[in-house]
Amino acid sequence: MLSISAIAQDKSYDKSDSLVVRSIFDEALLDGKSYGQLNYLCKVIGHRLTGSQQADDAVNWAQKQVGSYGVSRLAQQSVEADHWRRGDKEWVAISEDVDMLLNASALGGSVSTDGPLQAQVVEVNGMEELRQYNVGDLKGKIVFLNEPLDKSLVNTFEAYGACVSQRYFGASEAAKYGSVAVLVRSLTTLTDVHAHTGSMAYDKGVKKIPAAAISTQDADILHSYIEDLGAATVTMNLNCYTSITKVNTHNLIAEIKGYQNPDNIIVIGAHIDSWDIGEGAHDDGAGVVQCMEVLRLFKEVGIKPKNTIRMVLYMNEENGNMGGKTYAKRAKVNGENHLCALESDRGGFSPRGFSIDGRDSQIMTIASWKELLEPYGLHYFKKGYGGVDIGPLKSKENKVNPNLMLLGLYPDSQRYFDYHHSESDVFESVNQRELELGGASMASMVYLIDKYWSLFN
Amino acid sequence: MLSISAIAQDKSYDKSDSLVVRSIFDEALLDGKSYGQLNYLCKVIGHRLTGSQQADDAVNWAQKQVGSYGVSRLAQQSVEADHWRRGDKEWVAISEDVDMLLNASALGGSVSTDGPLQAQVVEVNGMEELRQYNVGDLKGKIVFLNEPLDKSLVNTFEAYGACVSQRYFGASEAAKYGSVAVLVRSLTTLTDVHAHTGSMAYDKGVKKIPAAAISTQDADILHSYIEDLGAATVTMNLNCYTSITKVNTHNLIAEIKGYQNPDNIIVIGAHIDSWDIGEGAHDDGAGVVQCMEVLRLFKEVGIKPKNTIRMVLYMNEENGNMGGKTYAKRAKVNGENHLCALESDRGGFSPRGFSIDGRDSQIMTIASWKELLEPYGLHYFKKGYGGVDIGPLKSKENKVNPNLMLLGLYPDSQRYFDYHHSESDVFESVNQRELELGGASMASMVYLIDKYWSLFN
Repeated sequence: MLSISAIAQDKSYDKSDSLVVRSIFDEALLDGKSYGQLNYLCKVIGHRLTGSQQADDAVNWAQKQVGSYGVSRLAQQSVEADHWRRGDKEWVAISEDVDMLLNASALGGSVSTDGPLQAQVVEVNGMEELRQYNVGDLKGKIVFLNEPLDKSLVNTFEAYGACVSQRYFGASEAAKYGSVAVLVRSLTTLTDVHAHTGSMAYDKGVKKIPAAAISTQDADILHSYIEDLGAATVTMNLNCYTSITKVNTHNLIAEIKGYQNPDNIIVIGAHIDSWDIGEGAHDDGAGVVQCMEVLRLFKEVGIKPKNTIRMVLYMNEENGNMGGKTYAKRAKVNGENHLCALESDRGGFSPRGFSIDGRDSQIMTIASWKELLEPYGLHYFKKGYGGVDIGPLKSKENKVNPNLMLLGLYPDSQRYFDYHHSESDVFESVNQRELELGGASMASMVYLIDKYWSLFN
Repeated sequence: MLSISAIAQDKSYDKSDSLVVRSIFDEALLDGKSYGQLNYLCKVIGHRLTGSQQADDAVNWAQKQVGSYGVSRLAQQSVEADHWRRGDKEWVAISEDVDMLLNASALGGSVSTDGPLQAQVVEVNGMEELRQYNVGDLKGKIVFLNEPLDKSLVNTFEAYGACVSQRYFGASEAAKYGSVAVLVRSLTTLTDVHAHTGSMAYDKGVKKIPAAAISTQDADILHSYIEDLGAATVTMNLNCYTSITKVNTHNLIAEIKGYQNPDNIIVIGAHIDSWDIGEGAHDDGAGVVQCMEVLRLFKEVGIKPKNTIRMVLYMNEENGNMGGKTYAKRAKVNGENHLCALESDRGGFSPRGFSIDGRDSQIMTIASWKELLEPYGLHYFKKGYGGVDIGPLKSKENKVNPNLMLLGLYPDSQRYFDYHHSESDVFESVNQRELELGGASMASMVYLIDKYWSLFN
């Protein structure tokens, strides 16, 4: 019986599917457009912080590009978001005998220091150690959150996830103990000279204190100072601020209408905003051009989907996620029926599969396509996270379809945090074949989910 | 019954193995030495063509390094090889109105042009098209073999394998039709400015004509010239030659003696020579430092093998494979019993598994370890090629053990031919985590094969 059920399992796709998947990969590897598009996005437009001219330019550019792929609907969706700006370049220095400048970057969302702020530094190895202090212990001090990523974890996203809270919540936590500012060790698996920025937020009712990331190399230097001298004095000068007025910005939506169930929607998504350093090449320019490429591949290969394939390029994932939240809210209001959403936001590296936020039976159906997809390097089909942008679709208040399934493209993660949120996240760090394989992997997965959606209900 | 056999299959390892494998990866990811060793090999020693001072330096350096890992045997093995030298830098130019220099590199083994050689070029799309000509048709002409790699193949080694014959055999084939020299399109998946060299050989009794690779970008330019003008004249000046006397050079052998069956040998191997351009970082510096690292990991983690683990760093893989041939011949003469050999020569990229040149039952045993190894990204355990260096161990004349199994570390192949045999194969193109994962993957595989060898007989 087991062998029969094993055979039945294999029959969740048919022979023609292997030809379609081969055609998708042929088109992507021989004549894919992801790499060329990413070149334009990174080199001509550049980084794309929410509220910047470049962010608007990127949405308009993507709209024009995708318009040439013959989509059936193409529209910008209004998104209101906080408008955080860096202001003049920040500086952070160890102020002992002479000032020693550190590679630093204000965290997104941070308040300014309101002129140079000098204080003694207290180092803690992450949030848990910070919480050992008593209220008042850190009065007037700068807290230095220096928990490193655990490099022994093969999946670097797990290492990141385990200590990202010191960046996001560190300032509010430190403020509770009387601290005047925080410095955070950059969240990278490398020891390098780049400050890796990222978002942070303030708890309600807690004093807002400034926060900056320093490079891992500088974090090690600061650690040595403190170890040698017992303490160190640091001067910080951050000029960043959040405008009082929100900024009106946009998601981009483009559709291939389904011929059978046009009201059933399969989303492919990525975020078009980025931080204001580097070029947002892996994060998330790669995802943007891969989503655009899925639409082009469907057209070139001649796939007519049963359900509507909707590309959403989200604004503001990096500092507020208002693109994702707004999209999901409107979808709920409009009573739209989302079957599934697939996000690419883990870098343009060699794809290995998909992490799936769905029921076990749904994951098993996808895993039953393994034999079909493994020749393309796709072997990972496991329960896991979909992505930040598509997440709100599944929140209690927004979810419409009880069978909604979220997926995240799952590339090799070894190099991702070398570049993440830093000056080195530039076009040159992306490999053409690895990037193009990602778009083809997404197109193949969307093709199969669309064709066999009845198996997921 | 099927389900019982499936369970039995899972029992080809026990719980303690997962702890050992975890310890290996912890050591490699937290304190691995592959990357530092590769830095020295590439930046201090440099490229290592057989017969060069650097090749000898590299063997001596590796011996010293491995000596500090407490191995039980450490020796150099004499290898006699042809001594090919580039001489003064070659130049190749399209000689129309003005000379246009091309990025070119003499192929390893080629004879010189004996001063500038000017002739009309005839382009052919690979060996098959060349064989359409009649003897004498190409008299006095330079044949331009311009077959590109098939970029649609996901495994780039398949694309390389499909057209490498134009580089290796092209000169002798062209000579049969009267040609005076050959130019070969570089074997890379990129369109780039680098000439990618490689080995070639002359058939006995056929006139030896000079051969050089030109960059893919220059190949496209030359193609356009010929298309536009109907023909093109090229001038080649190669100064390379093979010395009349052979060179005496060395393999390096280092062992951890088996406590149970010291006469049973498991080889881990890579080649320490490289081409004389770039730094031989991926090809095969990566393999060299990974093999060295396996010995260190065994020591650090405290693994005592039942059988003897023997590291062999082979000389002369690139142009003659005399290291591999000599090693296998001596092993036969000495009646040594090799159980298995594992080679790393596909670049220092994220490992995905192993290709296995063995019986189906042997491959199934290795595949039964999949659950144990997949958390480390290892999912590929399939029939396939072991490697050039270890190949001679399994030849008819050398094979001793009928159960001999050859394995090749199987990393992601997307970027390999970007660098292969060119100036860009330098240390900077290697990622630390990807490289260290390779050494840990090899150590884990050797640990399991050694422990469970009885399953492979």
